[in-house]
Amino acid sequence: MKRLDSEALEEIALGATVLGTGGGGDPTLGKLMAQQAVARHGTIELVPLDAVSDDDWIIPTAMMGAPTVMVEKIPGGGEVVDAFRMLEQRLGCRAFATLSIEAGGINSMIPMVVAATLGMPIVDADGMCRAFPEIQMVTPTLYGVSATPMALADEKGNRTLLETPDNFWTERISRAVTVQMGGSASIALYAMKGATAKKALIPGSLSLERSIGQTLLACRRQKRDPIDSLLSLLHGRRLAVGKVTDVRRRTERGFARGEVEIAGTQRDAGAQCRIFFQNENLVFWKNGQPQATVPDLITVVDEQTGLPITTELLKYGLRVTVIAIPCHEKWRSPQALELVGPRYFGYDIDYVPLEPAAVN
Amino acid sequence: MKRLDSEALEEIALGATVLGTGGGGDPTLGKLMAQQAVARHGTIELVPLDAVSDDDWIIPTAMMGAPTVMVEKIPGGGEVVDAFRMLEQRLGCRAFATLSIEAGGINSMIPMVVAATLGMPIVDADGMCRAFPEIQMVTPTLYGVSATPMALADEKGNRTLLETPDNFWTERISRAVTVQMGGSASIALYAMKGATAKKALIPGSLSLERSIGQTLLACRRQKRDPIDSLLSLLHGRRLAVGKVTDVRRRTERGFARGEVEIAGTQRDAGAQCRIFFQNENLVFWKNGQPQATVPDLITVVDEQTGLPITTELLKYGLRVTVIAIPCHEKWRSPQALELVGPRYFGYDIDYVPLEPAAVN
Repeated sequence: MKRLDSEALEEIALGATVLGTGGGGDPTLGKLMAQQAVARHGTIELVPLDAVSDDDWIIPTAMMGAPTVMVEKIPGGGEVVDAFRMLEQRLGCRAFATLSIEAGGINSMIPMVVAATLGMPIVDADGMCRAFPEIQMVTPTLYGVSATPMALADEKGNRTLLETPDNFWTERISRAVTVQMGGSASIALYAMKGATAKKALIPGSLSLERSIGQTLLACRRQKRDPIDSLLSLLHGRRLAVGKVTDVRRRTERGFARGEVEIAGTQRDAGAQCRIFFQNENLVFWKNGQPQATVPDLITVVDEQTGLPITTELLKYGLRVTVIAIPCHEKWRSPQALELVGPRYFGYDIDYVPLEPAAVN
Repeated sequence: MKRLDSEALEEIALGATVLGTGGGGDPTLGKLMAQQAVARHGTIELVPLDAVSDDDWIIPTAMMGAPTVMVEKIPGGGEVVDAFRMLEQRLGCRAFATLSIEAGGINSMIPMVVAATLGMPIVDADGMCRAFPEIQMVTPTLYGVSATPMALADEKGNRTLLETPDNFWTERISRAVTVQMGGSASIALYAMKGATAKKALIPGSLSLERSIGQTLLACRRQKRDPIDSLLSLLHGRRLAVGKVTDVRRRTERGFARGEVEIAGTQRDAGAQCRIFFQNENLVFWKNGQPQATVPDLITVVDEQTGLPITTELLKYGLRVTVIAIPCHEKWRSPQALELVGPRYFGYDIDYVPLEPAAVN
């Protein structure tokens, strides 16, 4: 039986920033909340997905909203436990465990707060193996799992329980509620039984994040190049090396949207690169050509440390490397690409699956 | 025991348009829904407020949203019954009756649909004795009654259950949900027990509306001047006689907002009049001076027939009389004026209680 202590949370949070692909919310805040909960209530049991009984309920928990807001509007932790309890009550069940529906970003950590506080396991799985900006963008949607009943809670005492005919309506209504709640909300949704979860979720996401975190930390200690190790672990490739020359971001209808401009340096000298994001990085352009798109992961890391930089922390002058990581194979079916491919986000370009480069 | 048949609904709906003060939604649509429900399920029992037992639950039902939207997005009737049932289930009770929280406009009729369909009485009372645009603007708010738990339902199958720390938060979050539901929603809220209702509600609202309707219909049959009879019944006064010269309306954040310009004719020749509205008429100006404001009622009626004209039906060239009716005394306390007085709506003017004129 694996148990997650404060150090494990540190490693997972670091890996979650890489899989957050620029969005997902900076996990630092969530990590501090989770570490505090572990210090108070003890370590968290990590359960493999295939160890969940078919009839056991599992209830994912998360934060919803613009990462730019979450950085300043700090959740108390109690709200997300409330959201979890509301959903248990609505379903008339006692859940066996909670989990991340979105392993990338802060939502790797929010369920840790719930698990530690309630003394309950967390399942080693998620619904993305990255971060995505909208509620319906999870593998359970591909398997017909309903996002609702969904519970939303905020720090002011507002509580909402939602049922919708499909997961697109869930996104639409819960987004509007989240905006009114101040731009971020604590949520519980996609409740499912073990049998469904084993089909619909991606197993091992938290363990993968822990490996990423351990790799980056080991490189730092051993003064090795972290980016090569990262690309090797994740079968990724370098898209560009350069300097951030402009960041335009706006908080719009509950999302952080915008573009980042990067002027190539070193091997990319003279190249003009641009990343579009909606919470997460969506498309990477180099000299007017798209070179990577959702659902593959586009992550900006510090050129020296290899540490990932979330969109809200990007600023003029940063020296960065942009890397791309192939998404989980569940995202590469035609049905999945309708849900999360570049055209859904308004880009009139085809998704071309990223292949690892022979030489980075 | 009074029972309401199709004719009674006709009369109440007509009276509800007068108390709707330009907003509240045109009751015609609701009336047709209610008459259809009565034709199918039988007449509706009308119960006086003081006949409700102290321990009985009563649950108001209504439509929420912009009247301009309701005219085109016709509710099916099933949604409002669903909202009612959701609230019963949440409270773990069987309600004794439903009622209007807002007697003015379409919400005089929506609870009739619920009462007829479920074979349950309707209480002769409401929370305004007029129409107001926002959820918290009801006499129960003045008595500390919570609007939540509140249920919202739409025709697409979306269902929302809301709990908020106060009734202003209820307005804020439910308005955002209503906008996403397409601009209008079926709701159940302000559930209360009989003992509370007797303090917090305004008794006799439906009977008053029926009297108004009967008066207008009798005048039409007897070819008497309907406006004098109306003013005499409601202790109101004529504000202006004139011709509509401009209507500016916009659907904005879930409300119908705008202004109506009226050029005085006859005794008001040369006068320039203007009405500002947010769903309901809020302030009446004549030659630059405010002459009537919320919470008093400002209603535009046809100069000839005395029939009220809702804001969404106002148009250039209509010959109208603008009348004002004193609001219920519960709205005239300093606390009530904070909730619904002109300053709440952004007008920097004092409320001056309307007194009936000796000569109209």
